[in-house]
Amino acid sequence: MTETTEAQVAAEVKTPSPTAENATEVPAATTNGHAEEQPASEQKPTEETNGTSTEDKAKSEPKEELPPPKEMRAVVLTGFGGFKNVKILKKPEPAPQTGEVLIRVKACGLNFQDLMVRLGAIDSPPKTPTILGFECAGEVEAVGEEVEGFKVGDRVVALPEFRAWSELVAVPTKYVYHIPDEMTFQDAAAIVMNYLVAYILIFDLISLREGKSILLHSVGGGVGQAIVQLARTIPNVTIFGVCSKGKHEALAATGLIDHLIDRTDYVNEVRKITTEGVDVVMDCLCGEECNRGYGLLKPMGKYILYGSSNVVTGETKSFFSVARSWWQVDKVSPIKLFDENKSLAGFNLRHLLYQQDGSAYVRSTVDKIFDLWKDGKVKPVVDSAWALEDVAEAMQKMHDRKNIGKLVLDPAMEPKPKPATPAKTKSKKQASEDKSSKKDKSSENGDDKKDEEAKTNGEEGEAAATTPEAVNGDSAEKKEEPVATNGEATESEKKESS
Amino acid sequence: MTETTEAQVAAEVKTPSPTAENATEVPAATTNGHAEEQPASEQKPTEETNGTSTEDKAKSEPKEELPPPKEMRAVVLTGFGGFKNVKILKKPEPAPQTGEVLIRVKACGLNFQDLMVRLGAIDSPPKTPTILGFECAGEVEAVGEEVEGFKVGDRVVALPEFRAWSELVAVPTKYVYHIPDEMTFQDAAAIVMNYLVAYILIFDLISLREGKSILLHSVGGGVGQAIVQLARTIPNVTIFGVCSKGKHEALAATGLIDHLIDRTDYVNEVRKITTEGVDVVMDCLCGEECNRGYGLLKPMGKYILYGSSNVVTGETKSFFSVARSWWQVDKVSPIKLFDENKSLAGFNLRHLLYQQDGSAYVRSTVDKIFDLWKDGKVKPVVDSAWALEDVAEAMQKMHDRKNIGKLVLDPAMEPKPKPATPAKTKSKKQASEDKSSKKDKSSENGDDKKDEEAKTNGEEGEAAATTPEAVNGDSAEKKEEPVATNGEATESEKKESS
Repeated sequence: MTETTEAQVAAEVKTPSPTAENATEVPAATTNGHAEEQPASEQKPTEETNGTSTEDKAKSEPKEELPPPKEMRAVVLTGFGGFKNVKILKKPEPAPQTGEVLIRVKACGLNFQDLMVRLGAIDSPPKTPTILGFECAGEVEAVGEEVEGFKVGDRVVALPEFRAWSELVAVPTKYVYHIPDEMTFQDAAAIVMNYLVAYILIFDLISLREGKSILLHSVGGGVGQAIVQLARTIPNVTIFGVCSKGKHEALAATGLIDHLIDRTDYVNEVRKITTEGVDVVMDCLCGEECNRGYGLLKPMGKYILYGSSNVVTGETKSFFSVARSWWQVDKVSPIKLFDENKSLAGFNLRHLLYQQDGSAYVRSTVDKIFDLWKDGKVKPVVDSAWALEDVAEAMQKMHDRKNIGKLVLDPAMEPKPKPATPAKTKSKKQASEDKSSKKDKSSENGDDKKDEEAKTNGEEGEAAATTPEAVNGDSAEKKEEPVATNGEATESEKKESS
Repeated sequence: MTETTEAQVAAEVKTPSPTAENATEVPAATTNGHAEEQPASEQKPTEETNGTSTEDKAKSEPKEELPPPKEMRAVVLTGFGGFKNVKILKKPEPAPQTGEVLIRVKACGLNFQDLMVRLGAIDSPPKTPTILGFECAGEVEAVGEEVEGFKVGDRVVALPEFRAWSELVAVPTKYVYHIPDEMTFQDAAAIVMNYLVAYILIFDLISLREGKSILLHSVGGGVGQAIVQLARTIPNVTIFGVCSKGKHEALAATGLIDHLIDRTDYVNEVRKITTEGVDVVMDCLCGEECNRGYGLLKPMGKYILYGSSNVVTGETKSFFSVARSWWQVDKVSPIKLFDENKSLAGFNLRHLLYQQDGSAYVRSTVDKIFDLWKDGKVKPVVDSAWALEDVAEAMQKMHDRKNIGKLVLDPAMEPKPKPATPAKTKSKKQASEDKSSKKDKSSENGDDKKDEEAKTNGEEGEAAATTPEAVNGDSAEKKEEPVATNGEATESEKKESS
């Protein structure tokens, strides 16, 4: 990695951002489809070098006094859609503006939100091309004007709205937090977003108390694992963790979850254990799970919606699944809540942080989380670490809900040599998981759309009107080159994720 | 008062309950209409005697060994409607059944719910005739079989579902709580219901934190005053108290409320003070205030509905006001809460206690409240105490939202001598308040219905469709003899109450 001085950075800020067209471009490797066939060794060498490509030199030749604009590797979304739109590109290094610090990124956190951004399935989506990523940790390399409380060399974690998955990122200090000396960058990137959500849910919105029971979707994901740990700081809490059967063994081994419930029939499974229901339902899925979750509440129970990952079904955006997630959610009158002694809440960290000026509140919560970490009460579960070049594969794993805990990217990490060389940075277990995952995908490739619709309708027997028009609308949407993940994705339609 | 032995009680349990028709009946005195014309001195003497009327003697003559069935005075609702249906009747003394204690009542609490019961404006209304009242304090006079933890002579407060406003009441022990030795019965009856609601809202549902702001309707009422006191146990809480202008001076004198807001235009008044809104809205009114309250929330704000006193407008049940309270409440999607970072909650103590088996939770909360009382953090505000015979006047005062703090009944208290003799048990201030109240009522008597509708429509400018049909439906409803309070009631349509 190149160390950049402040003088260099100042010179480079005038360089216009390259568009997707003129940037040096390498598609992010995926584990499936055509991209998978292309071994890392065949990728363009510019991907691994930094600011020294011939293209760059040609550009900067007329200005002899100025050094060539420095470039960095970044994970760029070139357009909404499938994994092929996620590319590793060379981008000019940013410079910190007033109130910003420039961070040399050492670790990035993947969040389910990143999948939704890729699909364009979020409100106020960014303009493409854009550098992806909401979460990174690293060292302050330069500080902009009017910055207080941060200096070069500070170890920090940041929550920029996009642009976190890059070698360098300039972030307004209101989204930057110092990390404890003993905390690794990887742990920092694995902690902040997930534990922020978990902490705010557990302590500020639910105010979970001794003796209460909680039902938690996607218990194997990063937020799920964070919620479990924080809930365990309160005595005598009963945790019903919902996830796919395949994760039960690994999660049972943690000994933290009282009842592991398969997601296919979780309502009946919970009712078998407790006819009266639960005190809290934490829902990151949305759609029909809202109604089901509300129905599972005891009197004085609290339901909270903090994600809408049910929107993500296939690899590309599905109007059908988006519409389903909206139409199936019953509106509730406050009078019903009054009659039934129930609460409904929603939490959206992105809106809070970037649209609702919640940065001071978030900062105070980060402090509390780091205090808990120092006390040993917060131990981030990292599923696996990946090179930037392997981001598509990491996203695929999250999409398939195969992760237990957090997926992180490490810009300094070597991409996985493919396909023959054994994975250098992974455990045996991890490598074998990947292998079997690939097998599934290749065998299911082909009849993706048809398969998805059939399974969707089958699974939504309880749901409200899903008209043929809606299905057609979905099918008629973006006719992308089919990618191997579609068949797989439908299997995990009722999914668990970070 | 007569002391009853357990033997007597056992004998009397077989006595059939007299119906409203055969019971000795005296209408409760009211401050208005025809009842007002009848001074207490002209009331039937049987009201003041106990179980010794000639009628009783005639009944018991054939059974010479048995003593005549003992009777007690009770506040009986003979049918849903106006104050004339609230009567002081002689009823046979109850005996404690299995799991019950018999309580000699020393003080009763009035709650807004009692007005709604009188109107029949609650769900699952009781069959009439019924003894009114949800709250009383007194001494255990007898214990039924299988009672543990209570003995004769214990000082207790109780929350039976109805029947509390009587000289004696038998209550299942799950609704009975020991009171601290130093606590008066009047304070006990003034504390339990109001502080239960306030405590659960503040600490369990809202989980109010340091630095937060709350908006509170009916801040002058019993629950309002309790919420203010409990909120003040948390540092740096900003309280916006909404009530009629007439109470501002008295409430300002307490020094506990940061911003006293007139209820007629409270949304704009609050926005003038804080453009961003408030963290918490506590709404006991329902109807259009639900939408307004939600609109006043900051991000991460919590709205809670814990009453529907907007239903009570005129003295008799108004389908118009009931419908208004329902139709004007917008249903909310959990997705909206997710987008806006907001919470909605409902709390209904009656449902929790009698329909949802919340008695253990309520008992543990009563313990916490009594601990706060012992620490001097809970000091019930008692507006005034009344004889059973003056219950209609007390209810009228609550209906008119003239009270600050709790109204209590004392079965041992002498009724107010009317009209000439000065009130024996009241302060000068109280007596003069009553006087002016009467004046208002008599002057406005006559064009009650028309007046009510006009004011209603005028005040509901922001509200959704209030069709002429709804108005007609209302007018066509129960054609009771007009009672003087209707004109007055419309003045306090946006009301504050306990």
